[in-house]
Amino acid sequence: MKLLRYGDRYGSKVPCVMDTEGQARDVSSLVTDFGPRTLSPDLLDRLRAADLSRLPVVDPTGLRVAPPTAQPFNIWCVGLNYSDHAAEAGLPIPDEPILFNKSTATYCGADDPILFSPRMTKLDWEVELGIVIGRPTLGITREQAMSHVAGFVLVNDVSERAWQMERGGQWVKGKSFPNFCPTGPWLVTPDEVGDHGALDMWLDVNGTRKQTGNTASMIFDVATIVSYMSEFCQLEPGDLICTGTPPGVGAGMKPPQWLSPGDTVSLGIAGLGEQHQTVTRIEDLA
Amino acid sequence: MKLLRYGDRYGSKVPCVMDTEGQARDVSSLVTDFGPRTLSPDLLDRLRAADLSRLPVVDPTGLRVAPPTAQPFNIWCVGLNYSDHAAEAGLPIPDEPILFNKSTATYCGADDPILFSPRMTKLDWEVELGIVIGRPTLGITREQAMSHVAGFVLVNDVSERAWQMERGGQWVKGKSFPNFCPTGPWLVTPDEVGDHGALDMWLDVNGTRKQTGNTASMIFDVATIVSYMSEFCQLEPGDLICTGTPPGVGAGMKPPQWLSPGDTVSLGIAGLGEQHQTVTRIEDLA
Repeated sequence: MKLLRYGDRYGSKVPCVMDTEGQARDVSSLVTDFGPRTLSPDLLDRLRAADLSRLPVVDPTGLRVAPPTAQPFNIWCVGLNYSDHAAEAGLPIPDEPILFNKSTATYCGADDPILFSPRMTKLDWEVELGIVIGRPTLGITREQAMSHVAGFVLVNDVSERAWQMERGGQWVKGKSFPNFCPTGPWLVTPDEVGDHGALDMWLDVNGTRKQTGNTASMIFDVATIVSYMSEFCQLEPGDLICTGTPPGVGAGMKPPQWLSPGDTVSLGIAGLGEQHQTVTRIEDLA
Repeated sequence: MKLLRYGDRYGSKVPCVMDTEGQARDVSSLVTDFGPRTLSPDLLDRLRAADLSRLPVVDPTGLRVAPPTAQPFNIWCVGLNYSDHAAEAGLPIPDEPILFNKSTATYCGADDPILFSPRMTKLDWEVELGIVIGRPTLGITREQAMSHVAGFVLVNDVSERAWQMERGGQWVKGKSFPNFCPTGPWLVTPDEVGDHGALDMWLDVNGTRKQTGNTASMIFDVATIVSYMSEFCQLEPGDLICTGTPPGVGAGMKPPQWLSPGDTVSLGIAGLGEQHQTVTRIEDLA
């Protein structure tokens, strides 16, 4: 099952489920919204049981692709979680997952602009598999973990490397500018994703392939991450966990490559859809 | 003006304003709740203009002191922001603010228990001045900063030092267990706090004074922190910024001192009230 939402950034969103013909069906008669206050195994069961053919088809013409669930309570990230990316960064493979956060105010839709501040100097990209949590999660085992996952999303973990690495410590500083977390277009439930440990992923800048990877290169897999994190915090429904990026980020190039206003970024993960962003100066926004 | 809320952790909260006699007046006829979706300069003006004598007095007997505003979208922290605490930690004074996050699922009331997991080994305390943001804040100057502050709160930035420092990087891992962010009892508006750069603060464990400090020792002051952060992220109404702790944390003792189940922690900041917590094993919760 694929969940998605259409609508304005600050206005109301239309929660939809994709039908077998790839049309978005408006499920707002069944649930007010997808998000931290509504996501649950029971909600997913009810949506699965719905007769989509009786629900309105949404015409996407002119509509913004909103993130597939409402703003999460927390956006978590796992650092250096691809063995090939750790090698690219010249850093040792971590003994246990490195955790950091992005501000939740970074959360945006798949095709929203990447916002460029005039103070940025090292703006970078990261295609990532995102986990969306489906129920409260504290102190669970690896075997229990997948029953706590509502689904998977495509994420671009946009990063300002100078702010992340050169401004006095803790990565969150370079991970938190508005629109630094394009998410979606869809949330795909685990049964429909298939083997989430073998998904191809890619990212292009201005039409040139930069990142090519597969979730099979993850050092810590999805169930390990969810179980591990539940030792240190309570994950909440709707919480987003970005699971790390494969090689090919700008910081890893020789010489490094950075994004500038006007650049276009496209990315995708098999089965999770695509994103298309344009780097846009904040003063150029309408 | 002092804002506060009474009520259950998962039930409805009663938003209140304290009257000149120290009684809580129920303002739920004026606003549904205090929090990210309602806090604004306009709301504070309307509450200031209200005739509290015509509103119901809340009898606090048997009621939980809830955090003074609803769960924020982000909980930010500034690390090593007291010159005397940096010396205690044996670390150099930062050139610019160190930022990190706590999970928002840590947020709780002033007198809620500090939860103890059997996997904790170095549980520690930190009395801090908290800033609550009152309007969206991006790219502002130091001179503009105070008009973006709704008020101040007392916070205990509870920390598990082994998880923070010995488990593979990034402090958030040791800052995010449930109930690691007791907040309140009140939000006090800047006009009532007076000089927020000269507030005495203290923390006791089992009745023995551990921390004694004054916000005058902050390396980066409130306006500097808010303006600085607005370069890197958009702060949202209700966002909580914990501004660092003075000397006397357990990790700084020789030998170090850690909290155990049954220990009591009391703390306060002049004008912002007091907190009283008991360290409680999670399996001992009702």
